[in-house]
Amino acid sequence: MTFAVQVKVMPLKELLDPQGKAVMGGLGNLGLNAIQDVRIGKNISLQVEANSADEARAIAEQAAKKLLANPVMEQFEISVQ
Amino acid sequence: MTFAVQVKVMPLKELLDPQGKAVMGGLGNLGLNAIQDVRIGKNISLQVEANSADEARAIAEQAAKKLLANPVMEQFEISVQ
Repeated sequence: MTFAVQVKVMPLKELLDPQGKAVMGGLGNLGLNAIQDVRIGKNISLQVEANSADEARAIAEQAAKKLLANPVMEQFEISVQ
Repeated sequence: MTFAVQVKVMPLKELLDPQGKAVMGGLGNLGLNAIQDVRIGKNISLQVEANSADEARAIAEQAAKKLLANPVMEQFEISVQ
């Protein structure tokens, strides 16, 4: 079976996110002052061949730890559909 | 009130995603052959000051259309928490 797995990779809360800050400045210039904070990460959508949702999640977690996320700067969250 | 709004920006299904293809190659080299497709987009987390969840969603939609997503190549999805 093929499972659709989403891996959300975001910069750690403790760290500055200069890309997010730049985008927030841009939004301010466009008059969107109601937006008070912006953080930008990655959303990675995987198609995983596995026997169960748990197995698909385990494979995605391995992928996230080995390649998709940098644990020094990023945290990740996995959701299986 | 401040609402946490997530904007998920993904490359359109009709388009190639070279970054995703490169990552899929890398995962194959690591032995993760169960992953059959990878698509990489952005996840943007906003803090929006608004009177209601609907207003927060409308502000985020404006931001996505004006700056966060490129409609020629990307689609976006908004969720308000």
